Amino acid sequence: MASRRPALRLLGQCKAQSQLSSQKVANLSRASRRTLSSLPSFGGPSQAAPFSRYLGWAALSLLIAAPVAYNMAVDTPLTLDSLTLAERDQQTKRESGVNDASPMRLRMEKFVKEQQKEIVRALEGVDGTSFRVDEWQRKEGGGGVTCVLQDGKVFEKAGVGVSVVYGTLPKPAIMKMRANHKNLPDGENIPDSLEFFAAGLSLVVHPKNPMAPTVHLNYRYFETANADGSSGAWWFGGGSDLTPSYLFDEDAIQFHKSLKDVCDAHDKDYYPRFKKWCDEYFYNKHRGESRGVGGIFFDDLDETVQDKENTFAFIKDALESFVPTYVPIVNKRKDMPFTEQEKEWQQIRRGKYVEFNLVHDRGTAFGLNTPGARVESILMSLPLTASWKYMYEPEPNSREARLVEVLKNPKEWV
Amino acid sequence: MASRRPALRLLGQCKAQSQLSSQKVANLSRASRRTLSSLPSFGGPSQAAPFSRYLGWAALSLLIAAPVAYNMAVDTPLTLDSLTLAERDQQTKRESGVNDASPMRLRMEKFVKEQQKEIVRALEGVDGTSFRVDEWQRKEGGGGVTCVLQDGKVFEKAGVGVSVVYGTLPKPAIMKMRANHKNLPDGENIPDSLEFFAAGLSLVVHPKNPMAPTVHLNYRYFETANADGSSGAWWFGGGSDLTPSYLFDEDAIQFHKSLKDVCDAHDKDYYPRFKKWCDEYFYNKHRGESRGVGGIFFDDLDETVQDKENTFAFIKDALESFVPTYVPIVNKRKDMPFTEQEKEWQQIRRGKYVEFNLVHDRGTAFGLNTPGARVESILMSLPLTASWKYMYEPEPNSREARLVEVLKNPKEWV
Repeated sequence: MASRRPALRLLGQCKAQSQLSSQKVANLSRASRRTLSSLPSFGGPSQAAPFSRYLGWAALSLLIAAPVAYNMAVDTPLTLDSLTLAERDQQTKRESGVNDASPMRLRMEKFVKEQQKEIVRALEGVDGTSFRVDEWQRKEGGGGVTCVLQDGKVFEKAGVGVSVVYGTLPKPAIMKMRANHKNLPDGENIPDSLEFFAAGLSLVVHPKNPMAPTVHLNYRYFETANADGSSGAWWFGGGSDLTPSYLFDEDAIQFHKSLKDVCDAHDKDYYPRFKKWCDEYFYNKHRGESRGVGGIFFDDLDETVQDKENTFAFIKDALESFVPTYVPIVNKRKDMPFTEQEKEWQQIRRGKYVEFNLVHDRGTAFGLNTPGARVESILMSLPLTASWKYMYEPEPNSREARLVEVLKNPKEWV
Repeated sequence: MASRRPALRLLGQCKAQSQLSSQKVANLSRASRRTLSSLPSFGGPSQAAPFSRYLGWAALSLLIAAPVAYNMAVDTPLTLDSLTLAERDQQTKRESGVNDASPMRLRMEKFVKEQQKEIVRALEGVDGTSFRVDEWQRKEGGGGVTCVLQDGKVFEKAGVGVSVVYGTLPKPAIMKMRANHKNLPDGENIPDSLEFFAAGLSLVVHPKNPMAPTVHLNYRYFETANADGSSGAWWFGGGSDLTPSYLFDEDAIQFHKSLKDVCDAHDKDYYPRFKKWCDEYFYNKHRGESRGVGGIFFDDLDETVQDKENTFAFIKDALESFVPTYVPIVNKRKDMPFTEQEKEWQQIRRGKYVEFNLVHDRGTAFGLNTPGARVESILMSLPLTASWKYMYEPEPNSREARLVEVLKNPKEWV
């Protein structure tokens, strides 16, 4: 938990600065709507940051720094050997494309964009409905693509978003960040600013059938750039968690087992550590219950844990395991019969999902408090509909009561 | 705006302390359910604090101090001449009842409890359905009554709550509070603790018909006690605001005119000042729009503005004007025809109401972050149902678009 604090302190410090840039951001940002297949290929023109895409609370530093960086970039363009990191990367992609020898930031960007297409394709296959695809560009570099399927045959709402952010960290942000990342410059070596890159994929899927669970996933990468454009500090974060309205133990077990298998293939310590972290983070404190049956959650996965190449291999395996894990679960549940009362219970659970996201989720809170944020991308995580019934309590010994019992006392599923 | 800051700083300071008391609060609090008419009359046994009842953000100090005070009361019972303020008041009520010569806290408590019954009766008259009445007691003194009508004929959800809190402010809280209230002890005269009293009434009414507006109201009183039981510092706060899904100018005008009339009868400066304050407070910053068409909002109304007797007279007039102002509006709208699309728009507006209450409202945020809080009383303000549609935009020049236009540019209604 201690690792979150520097980011939160940073938030407070940077907020005032970031507010200055709001109008500029609003003026510059523009939305275009097209189908996913019509998006420029990865080697195409560089796209830029909506700033506000929720990359998970642990990527707060990223979301915080972006508007600050942007403000600085607009007011006093920073160049490194007369080229910004974004410009360098654009040139690299244009001249030699992206391969295993490319900088990690380009490989991660390529990977999450490919995965976004894969996941969208897989979910469209389940639903039979196409996603709406919104792309944002900012000419300074970086980009965002938000894909949403709403009121489909199977899915009430499914959002899959990718963000790529180029920006500049001011000195106080570097100092704060250094508490968790010892390979950032220290003492007299701290520069006045440091360029950074961040990329991530987030998704939330709310199925219509109350027997089919909601799922959330987020994987992200952050790095700072040295003056010569090489990577400085870097870390990965992410995770995935399942939120059923009706608990089928076999689904929770299958979901956790898949995550454990991925974790174990890389480090036997990962699953127990990240499972616990997930239970702690996705906790609706005011209700005294977890948001769902958990999964994994982690942040600050850097060279103190594992080298970059192996960590990226883990992130890839984890993200690639999403479709083969979740799609069979939703296929098994999507056509199950249900009563009106069961649909109502789902709506009440949805209300608690909204509560978590709006009250406790740090990424959402920060995004919404960032002037100029693309609110609709941040709130794609909310269900299409939700309900709040005063003093609603499930019947004792009912399936609904058992779910609440499990949410109050997180289980070890594998 | 500056007047909010001390309360917010206080919040941070007191939170850690208040968490200590959570389990005790949870263990001691108990709910009973009965009809409003069966509640003990005002002269009956003193009831005690659920702490968490939302009295409006401006009463933060009250909500903050309560758990701290409670914690202290449990661990090291404080007595003044061997009787606590709550015990003194219980004795006074038992022996001589409450009249115009009684301390203001007893008169305010009596008044809001009477008004709760009046308002519940009036809304039951409109709907034809009875409210559910939940009363909480805590043996240390103080009490809460939450009345909710849910899924009625006219109202989707209507909540009317009263809170009475007795507690003790620790020294740091007194010091913070003094920034706004110069009649609190200062310098070397600041005691280690100070007993306080707070009472308030809050209500939120969400009608079913999308043509009928949601309304919110809150009036509250706070005072500290001198060692002899006499009143020390004191202030009133409150306000009322209207949130339509479909804007009928005549309703907004009637609502504002009624509030202006009440204000003007007491001080010509009140309405313009409190109208502006309301527009500023009930602002969904991340959407760049007001929650509704406003009304009035104020805090810290103390002897620097007007004497206690005249301020109470103003509060009484303002609260008593609610039924004759709102009931005619809802009666005019409750049976109007509406389409499915209009109901959907209402649900989308409800979503934004939820966003304000969960993201920006300081009272709700504090309440939810207070361990042991009665969450269901805090969240009675949420609608029964709400909706979030990705990128939903009203048609240009539609009634929906005009509402949004007005919310983005608050009007002067009278």
